[in-house]
Amino acid sequence: MSEDPILSEGRSAGALPLEPLVCAVTLELDRPSLSDNRGDRERFLDALDRALPGRWRLPLAVLRRLGGLLRAQDWRAVALVHRDSGLVLDVRPPGPQRVWGLAVDLGTTTVAAQLVDLTDGKVLGRASSLNEQIARGDDLLTRIAWADREGGLEDLSRRAACSIGNLANRLATTAGGTPADICAAVVAGNTVMTQLLLGLDPAAISREPYLPAANAPEPVAAAELRLGLFPRAPVWCLPNVGSFVGGDVLAGVLSSGMHREEAVSLFVDVGTNGELVLGGADWLVAAAGAAGPAFEGGVVKHGMRAAPGAVEHLTIDPATRRVSYRTLGGEPARGLCGSGLIDAVAELFLSGVVDRTGRFREGEEFVLVNADQTADGRAITLDETDLRNFLRTKAGMHAAVELALARVGLAAADLAHVYLAGAIANYVDVAQAVNIGLLPDLPPGRFVPLGNASLEGARLALVSRRARRELADIRGRVSYLELNAEAGFMELFSAALFLPHTDEGRFPSVRERLAARRGAS
Amino acid sequence: MSEDPILSEGRSAGALPLEPLVCAVTLELDRPSLSDNRGDRERFLDALDRALPGRWRLPLAVLRRLGGLLRAQDWRAVALVHRDSGLVLDVRPPGPQRVWGLAVDLGTTTVAAQLVDLTDGKVLGRASSLNEQIARGDDLLTRIAWADREGGLEDLSRRAACSIGNLANRLATTAGGTPADICAAVVAGNTVMTQLLLGLDPAAISREPYLPAANAPEPVAAAELRLGLFPRAPVWCLPNVGSFVGGDVLAGVLSSGMHREEAVSLFVDVGTNGELVLGGADWLVAAAGAAGPAFEGGVVKHGMRAAPGAVEHLTIDPATRRVSYRTLGGEPARGLCGSGLIDAVAELFLSGVVDRTGRFREGEEFVLVNADQTADGRAITLDETDLRNFLRTKAGMHAAVELALARVGLAAADLAHVYLAGAIANYVDVAQAVNIGLLPDLPPGRFVPLGNASLEGARLALVSRRARRELADIRGRVSYLELNAEAGFMELFSAALFLPHTDEGRFPSVRERLAARRGAS
Repeated sequence: MSEDPILSEGRSAGALPLEPLVCAVTLELDRPSLSDNRGDRERFLDALDRALPGRWRLPLAVLRRLGGLLRAQDWRAVALVHRDSGLVLDVRPPGPQRVWGLAVDLGTTTVAAQLVDLTDGKVLGRASSLNEQIARGDDLLTRIAWADREGGLEDLSRRAACSIGNLANRLATTAGGTPADICAAVVAGNTVMTQLLLGLDPAAISREPYLPAANAPEPVAAAELRLGLFPRAPVWCLPNVGSFVGGDVLAGVLSSGMHREEAVSLFVDVGTNGELVLGGADWLVAAAGAAGPAFEGGVVKHGMRAAPGAVEHLTIDPATRRVSYRTLGGEPARGLCGSGLIDAVAELFLSGVVDRTGRFREGEEFVLVNADQTADGRAITLDETDLRNFLRTKAGMHAAVELALARVGLAAADLAHVYLAGAIANYVDVAQAVNIGLLPDLPPGRFVPLGNASLEGARLALVSRRARRELADIRGRVSYLELNAEAGFMELFSAALFLPHTDEGRFPSVRERLAARRGAS
Repeated sequence: MSEDPILSEGRSAGALPLEPLVCAVTLELDRPSLSDNRGDRERFLDALDRALPGRWRLPLAVLRRLGGLLRAQDWRAVALVHRDSGLVLDVRPPGPQRVWGLAVDLGTTTVAAQLVDLTDGKVLGRASSLNEQIARGDDLLTRIAWADREGGLEDLSRRAACSIGNLANRLATTAGGTPADICAAVVAGNTVMTQLLLGLDPAAISREPYLPAANAPEPVAAAELRLGLFPRAPVWCLPNVGSFVGGDVLAGVLSSGMHREEAVSLFVDVGTNGELVLGGADWLVAAAGAAGPAFEGGVVKHGMRAAPGAVEHLTIDPATRRVSYRTLGGEPARGLCGSGLIDAVAELFLSGVVDRTGRFREGEEFVLVNADQTADGRAITLDETDLRNFLRTKAGMHAAVELALARVGLAAADLAHVYLAGAIANYVDVAQAVNIGLLPDLPPGRFVPLGNASLEGARLALVSRRARRELADIRGRVSYLELNAEAGFMELFSAALFLPHTDEGRFPSVRERLAARRGAS
């Protein structure tokens, strides 16, 4: 890795200079004398302003320690500053500093975090866990309902904070420090998650006209959320474009770099919720697909999250209809996660077990894993209800993409790239997703899996001032398409309830593949 | 009183528009719709920015209450704002608001406060009490020493805060409200008092090169000092020009208006500490006289603070040497306060009991009040030690004024006004102060008693933005004269150890008065 304070460049971002959200500035103050008897505060801020020009604020708690420290350290000191807000967070003796930052993807289901050394931008560790709010419901609507109970909002806020705090503790300890070494945090989450973390009532999000409490909440001190980090560490929840396009999506766009590209690309976040962003350097439109839970196993009986024992990939021999599969961690099969489910539907279709409408040619279900091979002794199967639910999710997603493309007068073929974000982005077999019509039929090279793009965007915002500015710029440029209100949505949706689509001409490669398989069998 | 929001004009200030440190702004927000789905925060701040342009910050605690309030009040609200810092302090239902402010003169001995209605600028009440730090020592040096003990600084900080908090409670209750109705406070104090209130170690103030912890401390939230006011109320300690010219002096200059006058005037604060400021619209110089305790009864055996039973005025019949006196509150005499002491020395001199050098022509002491007339049955007397101590204080003060005048090439006769500030300013008989050479021999009309000018300056800063700007301007323009380091000080001091002065020609009116009295007797 480079020794220079230059960050890994993300996608097409070019090299970003390291300008973290919080940084330590070493200061050498003018020595006081009878002819220079400025107060300690003014002497310190004058030196800071020389090093890093700005209008600085010095909280009383820091001022109280300033004089003693300056005298003990012979008028040298390190200022820990949050430049964007002009706040001096701490004053410390000179010398090497441990200044860590935490990037967080606060998902509805999963919370992922990276510990970053803000002095060189290096990632010190990664970890994830379930969002502890899971105990109060699986999806956004049940969480919003829970927040409406007496004490419910505080409960959910506390659970989100605990989820983050526990990850921070685990990461910091593993890296040989303590959570108090974490001096800044950037949190990317959907609008509901962000509001719940901040203790802001989310009720208005789910009622017309769907208002968030804030589009751009200000950074708050870690102590206010009881995260256990350095108490005055700024915790910045990334801004949103409304109730349905959250900071997680904007962070994803940032990490994709599509906002800097001349050509038009598509960004698809296939998480618990499904959002898409279309555009490039000239314009950006966003839409919420409401796709989600299917890809985390939520709409089929044997679905499950990506966890040990989840069937993540499978193939079906067209001749013997024997299933070959692989589970996460190589453990006995427990269920189907998102990528496994997509594979299963695609293989059932390609091998002729189900027809274009998602119905079994014979029987009422298909056994993917026999009972004697599973962890709990129950077979893992798919039936027509499962398929119907899945196709509805798939069709919703497809229709959203089609409608957004139509609104800007483009077709899928015009897309330079399709950026895939979300938990399954790195696991899903893109060809299989094309086979079932979930993704448009484009040359494989145009698909770019980003993995957890929200987390990556949060990391970029944590370490790069330019990234923070770009994020504000993206937020200002994105316009929101309300797809459910569009007249054409239902038509596009119905047409997409087929495998891969009513109009097979849209999926020429799938047609070829089908023909090839049938020829081979 | 005028119904317009125009303030009483202070001295020569002209009318000041009411722009209080904290004000309530009534807002009518745009109604949300599907085509205007800004977040509550942005909708609110956009409305506030239209009413009062600025870059506003909305603390999390306020944001948490915003959405519910806006919906309950049909998108109308009152914002309580601290404009100078851009902070929204609170959001409240529309309607008449109780927004009170507290002006405080935090003196070493006495704490005085005014309760002000910030919606119209009217003074609702005044009160004063001893500074509770008195229990830890009478003067600044003993306080600084106490702060150096284990827990001493916290103790003094707490005592200053309690003194203010108790006055706030008393004033608010009397006015029919509670201390939580007080949404802003301005504190004028000398540099040591200010630091002790804020919990800032004052040790460096008393050691060369005499550095304060801050020249311009930022406003802090009332809750940080546990004052019992509205928790987020900004408490602004006025800035200083160094360790010896505090916010109380700058506030006094502000209230005098001398900084706006073409002609050169002198401002003298005769409190526990003695400070002077010389100048006008073009320039300002300040010096610390270290005069103090004499005028609060501190250097004579029977001295006392201005309190019930203090002899505040007296005359001595030159023929009979009978003393006529008046006590504060008409109570039995307990001792001499500053104005009484000045009268006593002047009368002893004018009646020929003591000579120009401060020695008794016969005997060793003089009985001012017989034992059978005092509260404690002990006679109130002055002896030569008392007179010597008093003359030293007087000479120090006189020398400071002379030296400051000499440094700018002026004489006392050039002074347009002599502004008298401090506890005794409204009580002292100016003619008697001239008789003993404490004040220069100028026509009586040039002396302007300001009373508690520090408190008045704090009030102006509380209600007027222009006053706040002028205060910052005064701070930037004042240069500090270190008089003790001046070669000529001891010479001037020695010459002033006489009554009224070695050079009687400087006090022609006193010479005339002496001649007249002697002719009469």
